[in-house]
Amino acid sequence: MRLGLSMRYLGYHIAAWRHPDVPSGGAIDFNYFLSSAKKAEAAKLDMIFFADGIGIRADDNPKGSLARDMKNAELEPLTLLAALGACTSHIGLVATASTTYNEPFHIARKFSSIDHISGGRAGWNVVTSWSQQEAWNFSRDEHLGYDERYERADEFVDVVKALWSSWEEDAFVRDKESGIFYDEAKLHTPHHKGKHFRVRGPLNSARTPQGRPLIVQAGASEPGREIAAKSADVVYSSTLDLQSAQKYYADVKSRLAKYGRAPHELLIMPGLTPYIGKSRQEAQEKFEQLQELIHPLTGLAILYNVLGDLSSYDLDAPVPDVAGSEVHSIARNLMDVAKRDNLTLRQLYQHVAAANAGRALVGTAEDVADDMESWFRNGAADGFNICPATLPQGIDDMTDLLLPELRRRGLFRTEYEGTTLRANLGLAPAAFGK
Amino acid sequence: MRLGLSMRYLGYHIAAWRHPDVPSGGAIDFNYFLSSAKKAEAAKLDMIFFADGIGIRADDNPKGSLARDMKNAELEPLTLLAALGACTSHIGLVATASTTYNEPFHIARKFSSIDHISGGRAGWNVVTSWSQQEAWNFSRDEHLGYDERYERADEFVDVVKALWSSWEEDAFVRDKESGIFYDEAKLHTPHHKGKHFRVRGPLNSARTPQGRPLIVQAGASEPGREIAAKSADVVYSSTLDLQSAQKYYADVKSRLAKYGRAPHELLIMPGLTPYIGKSRQEAQEKFEQLQELIHPLTGLAILYNVLGDLSSYDLDAPVPDVAGSEVHSIARNLMDVAKRDNLTLRQLYQHVAAANAGRALVGTAEDVADDMESWFRNGAADGFNICPATLPQGIDDMTDLLLPELRRRGLFRTEYEGTTLRANLGLAPAAFGK
Repeated sequence: MRLGLSMRYLGYHIAAWRHPDVPSGGAIDFNYFLSSAKKAEAAKLDMIFFADGIGIRADDNPKGSLARDMKNAELEPLTLLAALGACTSHIGLVATASTTYNEPFHIARKFSSIDHISGGRAGWNVVTSWSQQEAWNFSRDEHLGYDERYERADEFVDVVKALWSSWEEDAFVRDKESGIFYDEAKLHTPHHKGKHFRVRGPLNSARTPQGRPLIVQAGASEPGREIAAKSADVVYSSTLDLQSAQKYYADVKSRLAKYGRAPHELLIMPGLTPYIGKSRQEAQEKFEQLQELIHPLTGLAILYNVLGDLSSYDLDAPVPDVAGSEVHSIARNLMDVAKRDNLTLRQLYQHVAAANAGRALVGTAEDVADDMESWFRNGAADGFNICPATLPQGIDDMTDLLLPELRRRGLFRTEYEGTTLRANLGLAPAAFGK
Repeated sequence: MRLGLSMRYLGYHIAAWRHPDVPSGGAIDFNYFLSSAKKAEAAKLDMIFFADGIGIRADDNPKGSLARDMKNAELEPLTLLAALGACTSHIGLVATASTTYNEPFHIARKFSSIDHISGGRAGWNVVTSWSQQEAWNFSRDEHLGYDERYERADEFVDVVKALWSSWEEDAFVRDKESGIFYDEAKLHTPHHKGKHFRVRGPLNSARTPQGRPLIVQAGASEPGREIAAKSADVVYSSTLDLQSAQKYYADVKSRLAKYGRAPHELLIMPGLTPYIGKSRQEAQEKFEQLQELIHPLTGLAILYNVLGDLSSYDLDAPVPDVAGSEVHSIARNLMDVAKRDNLTLRQLYQHVAAANAGRALVGTAEDVADDMESWFRNGAADGFNICPATLPQGIDDMTDLLLPELRRRGLFRTEYEGTTLRANLGLAPAAFGK
């Protein structure tokens, strides 16, 4: 079983920063991430991962909610990854970079450099950017349309891969005697000319210790699944129940053949937020403690885009029926849940906040391991991308409670198999040009 | 006296990689740079610096010269800077990033992040890109024209500075009790709308330990000098003799007043390549050893753009008179030098190679210190940007020979004054918004 650790901000629960044990300035503090990365490496996790967005929320709805949002300041993930790479030795280092507001040459070059600096542990999570606030930071009035965004992403990945294969592994002979620095026959200048990019190359970097950095994709949408099947080594999926996870797993793996790839060449790792206690009650208390720390304005901000401004309503009365017949289906579904379970407004935003953080599992280490094992053994997952509710507590709970249980079952390593990320993930070295 | 160390590739001499003691794969090896950075820090140098270009030569003239060029593979400077920042504690960390093929938001964010990671030691060397090969890597047929390039650079720096001042130093209150993460009154969203960029902001990063990263400029051209006077903290100049250095120094310092700045707020650091020996003869031998290691094809490649393909001529016969009346003045000047000094073709490319590396000083530590002191005391330099011919030998020669002599004269520090780059350079903290 492969295990990654998502480390953005102070954890994946929206109120993480208000938890009494969380260092609330951590997201801008290198030592906070270094300490967690070292713990993750000591726990022998496959990789750490930094999601990313290129800007903060541009609205403040309801008013005052933005100033209560922890997602305002963070370290930039590529510089952070390089710095962590210099201070660790085995753990994989994956970060998001957008294909919408970057240039392929820069992205190919920076991840190549991180792979060299880390001795073969870099991975690129390929995303497209769809938010208004990001568009406004890059001289655009609106973000790109869906089709154009994915078309650009597909070509972007092709260009990056071609740049990564500019030089064969033994291209640089550096023969001081003859004065020959590289073997001309082993240079492959991409000369890419496509619809979105014209990139001559070659990349001014040698082939990396991993052959090329790992490619990760979220791959939920139809074009995303195709990009994943064509080019990704790992998929971070976000399926919520076993059945849909199995369906997703089978679908994506079935797409590999048309690109000449075998099912084991792409690893599928659903996201998971565990709340682990020594007892079920302790786990439930951990979960509820965070739920209660959600500030009402933060909670109402989560509902704003779907249900509008509800800040004038009583938080502890039943959810007002604001969703008329003309509203979006997401709003209708939410109102249905509220009615069915007779939720108060406070309970509704707590419900949505928990769901936004991804699939939550609340229970003992045995409970959580049961669930993970079931997904792993039943064609739903090759491993998991753990999105801890808070850091560093989330990694401590893994080390102290979850990993011993997984190891007792023979599901997770006790030592790293190699020094590159591909080697630890059990992936064969990347073939040249692939 | 301020001292920086330029660390690109394997040194600034074009044949550096062929020197028997230089690790020829160093430019792609993180430990090579880490080891030199630690030596530079042990020597108490103000900063290390990585120049950069975004692509390799696109031509191979004369044929075979490209494969003999060491400038083909290197680590990407921003990721390298971040990694070095995590492994050092006092030395400044400066790298080039182009305003021509980047977006201000990315550059502001990455340097901010490096400043946070390093505890206040980051610096950005602002350049424009003018080469054909770089244009071809960024979907352009031609590079931008001179005026547009500098106009864009000027606006680019303004946007980056505005982004760096998105948040006041104490904006993030992170009050767990009230749930307020930042003080709304201390957020300053740039809302930049200019000719080249529209960037809303704010930057998703807190104000940095230095207030903002240092800004460095080469500032040779007229618009470059203005950008330097308006925004730079340090200028890396490339003047070759005392008189022109004094003229340049006086000119740039005189431009500061119109931007409300005092002369001491901008430090001018000319480049310098010292060849230091325990005797003058040893120094001269060090210099000549490298000159003789220049491969003829590498040497002829240096001359190609000015004089054309001379590979059919005898290297050890006098330079053929290929410069007719219609050629460029640079060619004419070169031919005049060759005739005046009765140079062979080999001697001519050795002459140009040495000049391309910048101002060379060949002599004992006392000789070199005499020269530096003369510039420093006579209004030509606030310090020097040392561009060693080879690394790590260049830094070893400084530590063993040059710095003891400078310290004997009271010209250079024995301990760091602070932990930020600005503090060590004697620059006041950056005022908010500046």
